[in-house]
Amino acid sequence: MKFGYYMPVKLVCGRDCVRENAALFAPFGKNALIVTGKSSKTNGALADAEAALSSNGQSSCVYDKIPPNPTVASVREGGRLAREFGAEFIIAIGGGSPMDAAKAIAMLARQEAEDIFSYAPSDDVLPMIHIPTTAGTGSEVTPYSILTNDEKQTKTSISNPAFFPKLAFLDGKYMRSLPQDTTVYTAMDAMSHAMEGMLSVRAGALSDALAKESLRILRAELPALTEGKYSDDDRDALLYASTLAGMVIANTGTCAVHSMGYSLTYFHGAPHGRANGLLLPAFFSVCEERAPARVKEILGAAGFETSEELAAALSPLLGEREKIDGEKLRAYAEKASVNKNIKNCRVHFSEEDLFRVLKNSVGDRQ
Amino acid sequence: MKFGYYMPVKLVCGRDCVRENAALFAPFGKNALIVTGKSSKTNGALADAEAALSSNGQSSCVYDKIPPNPTVASVREGGRLAREFGAEFIIAIGGGSPMDAAKAIAMLARQEAEDIFSYAPSDDVLPMIHIPTTAGTGSEVTPYSILTNDEKQTKTSISNPAFFPKLAFLDGKYMRSLPQDTTVYTAMDAMSHAMEGMLSVRAGALSDALAKESLRILRAELPALTEGKYSDDDRDALLYASTLAGMVIANTGTCAVHSMGYSLTYFHGAPHGRANGLLLPAFFSVCEERAPARVKEILGAAGFETSEELAAALSPLLGEREKIDGEKLRAYAEKASVNKNIKNCRVHFSEEDLFRVLKNSVGDRQ
Repeated sequence: MKFGYYMPVKLVCGRDCVRENAALFAPFGKNALIVTGKSSKTNGALADAEAALSSNGQSSCVYDKIPPNPTVASVREGGRLAREFGAEFIIAIGGGSPMDAAKAIAMLARQEAEDIFSYAPSDDVLPMIHIPTTAGTGSEVTPYSILTNDEKQTKTSISNPAFFPKLAFLDGKYMRSLPQDTTVYTAMDAMSHAMEGMLSVRAGALSDALAKESLRILRAELPALTEGKYSDDDRDALLYASTLAGMVIANTGTCAVHSMGYSLTYFHGAPHGRANGLLLPAFFSVCEERAPARVKEILGAAGFETSEELAAALSPLLGEREKIDGEKLRAYAEKASVNKNIKNCRVHFSEEDLFRVLKNSVGDRQ
Repeated sequence: MKFGYYMPVKLVCGRDCVRENAALFAPFGKNALIVTGKSSKTNGALADAEAALSSNGQSSCVYDKIPPNPTVASVREGGRLAREFGAEFIIAIGGGSPMDAAKAIAMLARQEAEDIFSYAPSDDVLPMIHIPTTAGTGSEVTPYSILTNDEKQTKTSISNPAFFPKLAFLDGKYMRSLPQDTTVYTAMDAMSHAMEGMLSVRAGALSDALAKESLRILRAELPALTEGKYSDDDRDALLYASTLAGMVIANTGTCAVHSMGYSLTYFHGAPHGRANGLLLPAFFSVCEERAPARVKEILGAAGFETSEELAAALSPLLGEREKIDGEKLRAYAEKASVNKNIKNCRVHFSEEDLFRVLKNSVGDRQ
């Protein structure tokens, strides 16, 4: 038995937990920069956070200019705003984009970083409170910030132990107005985290236990996801499963699926979770040949016998697939083959293997 | 779904993890006070910690005067020693007693506390590294320090978020020379933590998942515990199960079993884990009447159908029972009824209920 495990975020989970725990915001300081997207204005999360702050006499400034797949320019602007406003802490509200961006902003508020992707950050980072409003990224419990890297034409993860938020609030009510495709794709992202985490060379007993619990819950939510009808219990369960899967990758990292998925997002605009969902079955069909016992354990935790069963479950959720020509897929395989996540996988994936997975997932001739 | 969860300790688990991760000790400072019992000198843990420190050029001073069930006098002496030595951090090595004592020492090194049990501590506490060498207390992942309270003739828990160690090393090899009774009683303590944690009013989805995983592992170790023969895999599994159960009570606290058990330890010298093991079945037989579904879930996680099955499994491990007269048990029931843990239980236990559990567990006339 060999593993490392670290997840220092305090979790507060439950209906109306933000308003009911306003006192937890008080020690963070006088001024908060709220980093968010557009939907937090209608799903109630922003209002809840502002009410909590105002009950403590704390001030806030809202920065809502984070695009999906956050750019370096947008986090630089956020960092500048945090400094100008004198923010002592950051509140991130939203899906993966605002939460990942908030981490970079929390750093840029305190540190200059000329090239953000090669920069070795110190732990002088503004403290953060995260309020996820989608159930997929798990960013509220990870030390990762994934940003668009235009120079390398991909998404690149920057990691810093100081990127762990201090506090995360989990309330499924913020997902009530979430579109069906976002709900489905983010659930695929969570599933991908739990599954890839179990295939990581850093997987251990504790991350496995959390991953299996996440997969068990996601499997139970499959009928709701397929039907597109959700009770508040379903939303809570999806959010909890996503946080569990985040706790997994905080300790294991992700593997080849994420490495390949970044190209589908960067070049074809596939939402991140959809990209993972498209690739997962073909990825596991390769893994099945090379690590059959482990794959059986992983798929079994999600209630599937084989990668074909996984494919059959995800297929109706994905609808019509992207069709990408072979030459492009060759280039994406090459790009993925040098991504650091590839080395993180217990199963070796050559460039040819990656191409095969891409071709079988989104090739224009199958 | 409603819960809070916090467990900020970094875990490093694996054979020889202390020596192999000596670099992790370096940032803590120049001087370490090592708080330990006698057995760490023979089980290799002290030598490993000293080797790690010395490879970093760090100095240490060993304080090994912690009695089982640590006294206030012993932690005061430790606090004085930490100040005199200029300790910047504490390394706790051993079972629950040194680890719990180390937390109070880490506080007393920085704060005066006239009455340690009523004192409201600040978070100015020396940082700690814990190396458990028994598998029961889970202290390496909790914010609790349980000390002998002579004024109230019991053991009293003091709690402080700053009591969470920064780092804990888990290596089952330190248990190779552990006596059979200590191995068994500490496993009973871990089982009690997981089971009581699930009956806590603060139990939630995540603590339940960790508790069930702990109980699953403990159940699988029952044959080894009964036979008294352990492989290194068994020791690793017991230690991991104990840490999981510690992560549970860090978030849920314990319930009536611990409240009653303190008297068996204080007045009759029953080792803490043994006291819990003696009381668990009768405790669950009361709970079975009042919360049957939940008890079925808890016992089921440990592979038992009923509290009788639990009793049958634990009985051979307990050997001859303490026989205590009814008048004394009345007094212990009264004492337990005012213990704060009683309110923490989903099942209400009146003083009469507590007496009934004590009588059925260790009464001289059954």
